[in-house]
Order: sequence, then C-alpha cells, then structure tokens
Amino acid sequence: MKNLNDAKQIYWNPLVETLPLEKLKALQLKKFKRILKWAYERSRFHRRLYDEAGLKPEDIKVYEDVTKVPKVEKSMMRDIQRKDPFPYGDALCVPLEEVTEFRQTSGTTGTPVYQPDTWQDWEWWSEAWAYLLYAQGYRKTDRVFIPFGYNIFVAFWAGHYAAEKIGCEVIPGGVLDTEARILKIQELRATAMMATPTYVLGMADTAKKKLGIDPSKDLTIRKITCAGEPGASIPSTKKRMEEAWGAKVYDHVGATEIGAWGFECTAQPGGIHINEALFLTQLEDVETGEIIEEPGRTGKIVITALDRIAQPCIRFDSKDLAQWAEEPCPCGRTFRLLKGGVIGRADDITKVKGVLLSPSAIEEVVHGIKGLGNEFEVIVTKKGDLDDITLKIEILPEAEGNRESILTQLRDQLRLKTNLGYNIEVHPYNSLPRYEVKAKRFKDLRGKP
Amino acid sequence: MKNLNDAKQIYWNPLVETLPLEKLKALQLKKFKRILKWAYERSRFHRRLYDEAGLKPEDIKVYEDVTKVPKVEKSMMRDIQRKDPFPYGDALCVPLEEVTEFRQTSGTTGTPVYQPDTWQDWEWWSEAWAYLLYAQGYRKTDRVFIPFGYNIFVAFWAGHYAAEKIGCEVIPGGVLDTEARILKIQELRATAMMATPTYVLGMADTAKKKLGIDPSKDLTIRKITCAGEPGASIPSTKKRMEEAWGAKVYDHVGATEIGAWGFECTAQPGGIHINEALFLTQLEDVETGEIIEEPGRTGKIVITALDRIAQPCIRFDSKDLAQWAEEPCPCGRTFRLLKGGVIGRADDITKVKGVLLSPSAIEEVVHGIKGLGNEFEVIVTKKGDLDDITLKIEILPEAEGNRESILTQLRDQLRLKTNLGYNIEVHPYNSLPRYEVKAKRFKDLRGKP
Repeated sequence: MKNLNDAKQIYWNPLVETLPLEKLKALQLKKFKRILKWAYERSRFHRRLYDEAGLKPEDIKVYEDVTKVPKVEKSMMRDIQRKDPFPYGDALCVPLEEVTEFRQTSGTTGTPVYQPDTWQDWEWWSEAWAYLLYAQGYRKTDRVFIPFGYNIFVAFWAGHYAAEKIGCEVIPGGVLDTEARILKIQELRATAMMATPTYVLGMADTAKKKLGIDPSKDLTIRKITCAGEPGASIPSTKKRMEEAWGAKVYDHVGATEIGAWGFECTAQPGGIHINEALFLTQLEDVETGEIIEEPGRTGKIVITALDRIAQPCIRFDSKDLAQWAEEPCPCGRTFRLLKGGVIGRADDITKVKGVLLSPSAIEEVVHGIKGLGNEFEVIVTKKGDLDDITLKIEILPEAEGNRESILTQLRDQLRLKTNLGYNIEVHPYNSLPRYEVKAKRFKDLRGKP
Repeated sequence: MKNLNDAKQIYWNPLVETLPLEKLKALQLKKFKRILKWAYERSRFHRRLYDEAGLKPEDIKVYEDVTKVPKVEKSMMRDIQRKDPFPYGDALCVPLEEVTEFRQTSGTTGTPVYQPDTWQDWEWWSEAWAYLLYAQGYRKTDRVFIPFGYNIFVAFWAGHYAAEKIGCEVIPGGVLDTEARILKIQELRATAMMATPTYVLGMADTAKKKLGIDPSKDLTIRKITCAGEPGASIPSTKKRMEEAWGAKVYDHVGATEIGAWGFECTAQPGGIHINEALFLTQLEDVETGEIIEEPGRTGKIVITALDRIAQPCIRFDSKDLAQWAEEPCPCGRTFRLLKGGVIGRADDITKVKGVLLSPSAIEEVVHGIKGLGNEFEVIVTKKGDLDDITLKIEILPEAEGNRESILTQLRDQLRLKTNLGYNIEVHPYNSLPRYEVKAKRFKDLRGKP
C-alpha cells in the first residue's frame, strides 16, 4: 500500500480507496445487512417483497447470500408511488417530514419515479460525487462552471454540492443560454465543467460557429466530467470532446434511484471504477442469472446503495451491461474497473435482423469518422416481416468534397462493428435535432411483437 | 422574556431574536471591531480606504464610533475588480482557493460586481435565510417549490440551502417553463414558494388563463416569500398576490454585496425586521448624514455584514431608503422594524417636475385599482424645459366596461399619492412587456443635466 501522505494527494478517501477487495467485500456485507434490516423493518414495500420470497434479513450471513435477496426493478417503484405517504408510497423508510430533497427520474422509459432523500442521503450523494471529482483532479484551486438546468432531475446537482465540498469555486450556469455560458467561462477563466456529452459537443459547436471562439485555444477548461449518456466512455466521442476543448474528458455513471456509483479516474484506464465503498455491485449473466466474476464476459449490473436511507436501493436491476476489466487500474485504487464503462442496456440492446444492436456501437462508428457531424439518428422499422434500419447523418460543410469516401468508410465500419446493413440518409448540416441534455437518437418503430 | 421552550417554536434562534436592543448593539460592536480589523489587515482596498481617512481599527471603541468608518459604495467595488487575484481584486480577504461560490450583481445599475464567498460565508448566507424562512413559518413539514433560474445571481440560492437546513422538502424549479412549474406544484401539493412579486403575479395569470387553474383554490401554496422587488411591502401588490394564491405573502430584503438582512414575520407588522444578530444597520439622513434613531423620518440604510469574510461588507451605502417603525413588533422579536420595508431608493427617487417621485408609489396606486392589469410602465421625458410623465397601463378585458371610472380613479389616486399629473396611455391587454425576474418599469429618458 502506498504511503498515506502521498495517497492523500490522489484519493478523496485514501483508506477505503486502496483497501484490498476482500476487505471491501466484508465492509459491503456488513453495510448490506444493515440496509436490508432497515428496509425490512420500515417499508411495507420491502417487507412484502422479502416475505413473498421467504427471506428474512438474518438469512444473509455471507457475501454469497446476497444473491438470495430479490431484485427490484424501476417498474415496481412506479406501482407503489403517488400514494400515502404522498407522493412516495410504501417504499419510504423515514417519516415524510425527514425528506429534504425531491427529485424524479427523467421518464424516458415510462412514468417518472419519485426519489425522496433525507439530508443524510443528500450528504451521501455529495460524498459519492466528491470521490469521483477528486479522482478526476478537481481541487480547491479549480473554478468549475456548471451549465445545467438545476431542476427536478438530479443530474449535476450532487456534483455542484461535491465541488463546494472539495472547495472548488463553483459558478452555477442555470438558465443562461449557451452563448452566455461560453462567454462567462471565458470572462471568469473557468478551469473545469460538468455536462452531458451531447452538450459538451454542442457548446464547442456554438462557440466556434456563433462566437468565433475555439474552446481548445481561447478557453481555459481543462477537465470535463460527463454524465447522463455513455459518450465519455465511447473512445471516438471522448476524442472529439477532448480535441474540441483541449481538455481531459471523464465519464461518470449514476442514476436517480441508485446514486453516483461509477467513475473514470485521471489514469483514463478505458473504463470506470465502481465506488466499492458506497455500493455493492454484481454482474449477472442476462440469460442464466449466474454471477460473473471473470473479465471479458458481459453481464447486467445489479447494485445496492449501501447507505441510502429514505428510499433504499437494494439489489436494483439497473439494466446496464458491463464487463470486468482484466487488469487493475494504474491509479492504485482497488475499486474494481468495468472495461469500457457501461457498454449497453439490457433493455435497449434489441435484436434487429436477428442480431444484437446497441446504439452505443453506432455512436462509436459515427463519431470515429472525420467529416461526419456529431448528430445522428437511428430508426428501426418493419418492411413486411423484415427489420429495416435507417441511419441519418450529417456531413460537415467543409468535408462535402470527401462525401463518397466518408460514406464508404461509414458503411464498412458499421458492417464491421455491428454486423448489420443500413439505409444511410445524408441530411443537410444542422438539420437533425439538437439536444441540450440527453439525446434521443434511437427510435424503434417496429411495435411490440 | 418568553419561556424559551415556547420561543423555540417561533424563533430560529430564540436567544438572539429576543435579546434587548442594548445587548444586540454590544454584540454588534464586538463583531464590527473584529470584521474591521480583519479587512484592514487582509485587504489592500480596505487598508487604503481607512488609511486615507486616518482611521485605525483600534479607534473604534464605542458604538457611536462606527460612523467614523468611511462608507463603501458599489461603484468603488467596480473599480478594483477584474484584477488579481483574478477576478476579485484588492478587496478579497482570503486566499483565492478558499472561495467556493461565485455570484455577481445583476448589473441593472452598471457593470456587475463580482461577489466571492467562502464556504463559511455560504453557511452564513443560509443561516440568515433560515432566520427569515423560520420567521415566516417554514417548517420541516413544508414542501417548498422554488421557481428560480439557479444561475450567477444569488437571488433564491441561499433560500434553497436554508429550506434544506430547516428540513423542508425542496423541489428545485430550475429551467422548467411557467406552465410546467404550476403543474408540478399541483402534482406534488407543494405548500410554499419563493419568487419575485412580478413572477408571483405572472404565474397566477398563466395558471388561470392557460391552464384553467385557480391558485387560491386548486393549489396548496400557503406561504410565499418574495425578494428582488419591493412588491411584497407595497400593500396593494401584496393584497393582489395574497388573493391570487390564497396564501400569506412575505417580504424579504437583501443584496448580493450585503446578504439577506431584513424580513417580514408572520405577524405581518407592515414592515420588515432587520436581522440585528448578523447585521449592524444605521439610518442616515440623506442630506446631513446625521444618524436617525427616531421613527417617522426617512433615512438611507448603511449596513455592515458582521460575519462575512471573503469580500467584507463594511458600512455599505445601500441607497435604500427606510424609516424606523413606531411600535415594536407583536411577534416579540427585538430585531428592529422598518416601517413599510424599503420605501425607495436614494438613487431612483428622482425629482420630476420638481417633485420627488418613487416608482413604488406608482405601483402602489396601479395595483390598488381593481380592473387594471399587473403590468405598467413609467416613462419620464423632457418636453422643452419641462418634465413629462407617461404612464402606460393595461385594463383587464373583463373590466373594459368600467374603463372611464377606472381611469378617473387612477388619475385621482396618482394626484393624491404622488402629487404629479401623468399622460395616461391605455395599452391592449397583454401588450406591455412581461418580466420573469426583476421588472424594469421605470424609464427616465431625460438624460443627465
């Protein structure tokens, strides 16, 4: 183990971030038992769930017992909410008056789920973000600009509080428009930023086209923390962002119902660390449910927030797909690495023409080809009994001369990476929809079978 | 003094909020000496200012000595900023890396002033707001909706943190549009809200006209905290807001450079309390500079934030005009009352036709007449050598039948309250500009003499 004085310069919590895995797992088991008992005793929703499975909290004795605990899905939360104690219903484990924070999921996959947090939960959110921002090099000397809507979605809220906690100077970018945000970054010489990949690229575009500002030369942003979309873990998208801003771009993963559970560190190992101090995470084979411990095999992430008390997140079926990395991270953290971050969604990797298709794979291809714009759209339809995929792209005005070569590259790469053929539609530059927050680029119009 | 157990139910800080005035002044003097010494020793700006006046911190011995200390005006801050330590310049009293919060003034009266705060300052902001929200009945059982842009202006930021501190459930209304905000208030049954008077009235209008929602019947907001404009201290504007929402409406006063220094309590005494625990406030005759201790005489507020450390606010010339109230407040607080809140601005009460004119007085008249819309505009111009005042108003569609009687009332009331004659222009309903935040209703186009 490293000298603790040196470690203090690198890790937010030197002790736990370098704890051997077996000790981390022992810590997780202890906390897991505690949160399970807490939920069982305080929430009718959880008690019903565990009673129906014939499980008592005391049945969990060793780490392997964790898988006996039934999983929770987002759809189960929807059914119990909008009831007393209003509006959270039966999953709430604290008196309503202890709730200090209301947030909700974005509703992109259905009715939004409400998320109550106590003040203790909110401090825990900031703590989770403090691990990740610190791991990405945020220090008290940083001036952090946060171009974010500050509304009912949790998004960068905890990042804001964590940056304050670390001691950064925080500039909230609330309702300002994109141009005003860029000018404020320039005026105040901000050094860091948090945004979705879509918006990071969109801002660079606006800066160049509308203000004649080249972010990589004229601005001083040198690190960017992404969230909300997989982009920062997709090498070609990350490269585009890093080149546009002259900055290091880091991924972060989390969810309203779970918390900020994973992050990329400055070693940029081509993957993300799970925060094993605050979360118990398992990879599960999508077909068999078997727990995956070895690298190179894709599984679904099932995750427990070990310290979240108002509306606990126990064995949450995240639908996120990942693989363990083969090597430990050079940064020295013992927190395990997921190779390539979240590599897909169990509910969005759909079979098209009998082949598994992930929108992330298409993004990887599109953003890897010079001359293509950042925006694209994938539309899957039925032609008779056959699936049909249309990919809409834009060619940059300055690359129009290479149109044919670009399209050939695109077709080749798509065939190679996704094993599928596409109808490619070239749309005029700037005509595809632009998104401020999460992009909606994948449309499956085949209807349910 | 009341029984402390009862007092705990009413006051955020029962001890200081009921301290006799002489003890409050002793506390203020002690803190004043401390902050003066702090600024003198750490800021070149302050040292220069005091050296030029031949003043040393140790010259301040008794409360009356406070007036020996030179005043600071906003314009003086502008001159020293945008320099090293960038961008705050010579007034900064802490190392730059200790700053955790950037905010700036709105710039409605010139170049914006930057305001750095340390984390200690930020906790102090929340504490000041906690006094006021608690005095207005906010408790941990409240669900507070904050329809606010969360950007570089401090506005309701500290209110957000203070509501969390008290233990309310906070719903941040960030970039949502007005209709979405109203629907979210309804969906979640929010009980309290913070907004500018202009927006409070605008929301009610949108609710009725666009959504068919009557806030006083269909929504559950029962207290509203205003800031940013004098409206909640102008009886007719307050009445309009209270009727529209079926809620108690409370005023709060503060400024980016000062802090949240004054608030109305649930006793609604027709004025605002100064937070004498955190601020030393004096009223000064605008002409002679004499300190005013007696009620019924208008003076300019000169104010010191006693605990603000990054960019201290010592003897700040606020340009706000006020009068001490004659009676203490029935709420039992010993914090002194300003009658009618801030009653004008030393730099906006201008002479028109030789008479002192305050835009607030016009607002009081317009909002007091049934049948007039909430929006209005005052434009002062020169006709030859003579001042000319145009007042633009809107008549509500349903009141068109009473047009003549409304205009007669308006003319009479204006003559009575402002001693001036106006060209009254009736504009079609909904045609005058609407403001989301601070309204800009007064335009002086006479140019400088």
